[in-house]
Amino acid sequence: MDKGVTMEILLTNDDGFFAPGLQTLFEVMVKSPEDTVSIVAPDSQRSASGHSITLFDPLFVTEHPLSGSGYGYAVRGTPSDCVKLAVEGGIVPKPDLVISGINQGPNLGTDIFYSGTVAAAMEGVLAGIPAIAASLASFDFTDFEPAARWLAKHVTNITARFSTGLLNVNFPGSPGDEWKGVRVTRLGRAVYENVFESRLDPHGRRYFWQGGTLIPETDPDTDVAAIHAGYVTVTPMHSDLTDYKKLEEWQGRGAGTFE
Amino acid sequence: MDKGVTMEILLTNDDGFFAPGLQTLFEVMVKSPEDTVSIVAPDSQRSASGHSITLFDPLFVTEHPLSGSGYGYAVRGTPSDCVKLAVEGGIVPKPDLVISGINQGPNLGTDIFYSGTVAAAMEGVLAGIPAIAASLASFDFTDFEPAARWLAKHVTNITARFSTGLLNVNFPGSPGDEWKGVRVTRLGRAVYENVFESRLDPHGRRYFWQGGTLIPETDPDTDVAAIHAGYVTVTPMHSDLTDYKKLEEWQGRGAGTFE
Repeated sequence: MDKGVTMEILLTNDDGFFAPGLQTLFEVMVKSPEDTVSIVAPDSQRSASGHSITLFDPLFVTEHPLSGSGYGYAVRGTPSDCVKLAVEGGIVPKPDLVISGINQGPNLGTDIFYSGTVAAAMEGVLAGIPAIAASLASFDFTDFEPAARWLAKHVTNITARFSTGLLNVNFPGSPGDEWKGVRVTRLGRAVYENVFESRLDPHGRRYFWQGGTLIPETDPDTDVAAIHAGYVTVTPMHSDLTDYKKLEEWQGRGAGTFE
Repeated sequence: MDKGVTMEILLTNDDGFFAPGLQTLFEVMVKSPEDTVSIVAPDSQRSASGHSITLFDPLFVTEHPLSGSGYGYAVRGTPSDCVKLAVEGGIVPKPDLVISGINQGPNLGTDIFYSGTVAAAMEGVLAGIPAIAASLASFDFTDFEPAARWLAKHVTNITARFSTGLLNVNFPGSPGDEWKGVRVTRLGRAVYENVFESRLDPHGRRYFWQGGTLIPETDPDTDVAAIHAGYVTVTPMHSDLTDYKKLEEWQGRGAGTFE
């Protein structure tokens, strides 16, 4: 996709249509006159929704007009529903690029499995559309503009070099001039301790709160370690969870061992 | 894990604690006197929940006594919540093996991203525990016993050869004596057409139903094709979505292109 060719860019997220991370990204992206920027995003907070989709309830869609030539829709559904609807539902032009975010909070390492932000981007990839998942790795730092500018600057570069697949980008929770640079990383492991706290409700029934404290990752090649060292992390991801090593080994022996 | 050593086996699913696929699997598995079989499963239907987890609501847990020496808990949460709670919450002994299912309906190809059944098994893998996701590839055929017997028969074999990682097993929706055999497969693509149906509610508001018709997969090496040909499919899966080919290429060039 050369610059000069109009791109249809779809923005989505899991924090909801009006979340500052998404709105800031839109405001920055829409300044590029050659691209059309639309938003199809959940109508409410859907963090930790993973790759869930809505099969047994109707998906209601509310239009929110946007500046520029794109369309804005809030969907009573999950992030993946939104991308499916944008790609297959005919409500917006079929996107050339999906950007999911900018999420408030990190999406790193094995935690990406729980992430609605990453799932929405993956939904683009499953439909053959390159996608970026973008996250600000802090729950306190709320200036999304440096991250949005970084994304706008690199969109052409990224789509040109990344015609298929997913790019998972995390930004340090600090002003842009404090970032140490950019690291291309692999997914690390996000391991927590003290994950559950057990309590009794006023009726004496036991319940659990899920949370926990992240145990620092020691491998410096991982996204988890690089973000803690102050770098923007760029992690290329694919969509095939087949274990080919085991597959070859087992097919070599024949499937007979399972008969 | 040699037979003769007691295994702590955790069963879970996304169809809910009392779903016939899970209860039949339990009844078959509990007959092995050297293993302890527990159930920690959602208290209600959670199909298509993907890898979502519950961070902002309490997780209530109800005990349902089981035959045998294991524990039974229904959780007001997602499949992944259940496995996390079983592994980290101290309510059951830490499992040596997680089996998620037997699901009513297939979990094949790229559809595994939406699957609560597969996500629960993956949650075991993320905690370092081998796991099996098991599905009966039919919404109509409801005799889970042949599939449960197959799993019980192969558990030792599978855990011995599969000390880490996930095994995604799908059974044809037909009596066991009609199965054509077993195929070790890779994940195919599950592509649908006519995914959304647009309707107006009685108040004139537009909504969409998500559904669609599966387009047949032509590559015979895939799970999607093999199940349609009448085989039990066994697909080895891993938990790392890093695209190492791109990672090496980009690290070789230096991250400078993203600066």
